[in-house]
Amino acid sequence: MDIAELKSLVRTVPDFPTKGIQFRDLTTLLANGAGFADCITHLCEKVGALQTDAPFDAIAGIEARGFIFGAAVAARLGLGFLPLRKPGKLPVPTLGVDYALEYGQDRLELDPSMISSGDRIIIIDDLIATGGTAVAAVKLLREAGAVVDHVLCVIDLPQLAGVKRLHDIGVSTDALMEFAED
Amino acid sequence: MDIAELKSLVRTVPDFPTKGIQFRDLTTLLANGAGFADCITHLCEKVGALQTDAPFDAIAGIEARGFIFGAAVAARLGLGFLPLRKPGKLPVPTLGVDYALEYGQDRLELDPSMISSGDRIIIIDDLIATGGTAVAAVKLLREAGAVVDHVLCVIDLPQLAGVKRLHDIGVSTDALMEFAED
Repeated sequence: MDIAELKSLVRTVPDFPTKGIQFRDLTTLLANGAGFADCITHLCEKVGALQTDAPFDAIAGIEARGFIFGAAVAARLGLGFLPLRKPGKLPVPTLGVDYALEYGQDRLELDPSMISSGDRIIIIDDLIATGGTAVAAVKLLREAGAVVDHVLCVIDLPQLAGVKRLHDIGVSTDALMEFAED
Repeated sequence: MDIAELKSLVRTVPDFPTKGIQFRDLTTLLANGAGFADCITHLCEKVGALQTDAPFDAIAGIEARGFIFGAAVAARLGLGFLPLRKPGKLPVPTLGVDYALEYGQDRLELDPSMISSGDRIIIIDDLIATGGTAVAAVKLLREAGAVVDHVLCVIDLPQLAGVKRLHDIGVSTDALMEFAED
């Protein structure tokens, strides 16, 4: 399927999680076997185009929806998968980062022993909105010694300008599709 | 890699999450690109062997670690992926099941509009311990109208007898590897 067909598989749910938000829901794309497989193929092609100079050492995915896309791409390409987890999930001493959400805050953790200094890691996530979670993920991986220059996602919501926040910390971004608010 | 090599990539962490528990940690297998890809290949072969009569309509994965394995298998085989989510994550009316944990309880939810009556769905998870979560997942999918006869996982802990609880509700189980407590 081409990107337009994949985009047509995304469901828009009004007023979730709060009134006025148009939630772009990938559940309906995942349920379509050919659509999900082709989505992963498109993501793999973008990863391949980014590693012409040197291969990535791993793909990082953000709990929980990021696991779905990041792990499938990693398994397809034979790259390691590094889960960035919610607090308290990893059984070993972790490195973590707290970050602000619209209401309250959240935290991501990783096992720093899974990263060697200078490892080239790309982050794959489902969706970039304000970019707060992705920026936190980049900072966490860099603190662990990784080189992180790219974030790749399925959906970008350009009006929330998350991409700009990532560019501001020296990270390039790419997305399979964009949704303008309407 | 064969199963023995994959098993050697699993890290055992003593006394997590509580004293006396040997936590079998797949983070170290995921970090090995060839190991993770081969793990998915072995899981795909087991799914293929189970669908000689009729193909599965979808693979269900349990948040969060189950997403890593279930989604990668679904994308490889071109099957739909159905995420069984923690409460409050789905933007649509859900069907849910509460279930007991060793301490307290938890809940899984799904979007019932993603399932047609009679859909054949296989559950893929990272690990079966007491089987409580997997049993809840089977019940939830069946309540939504799915036919669920199989649970496939990477690791089984036979001494915790989760497999027996699944057999008791008419579900066959298979795992890539077992760890006996020592």
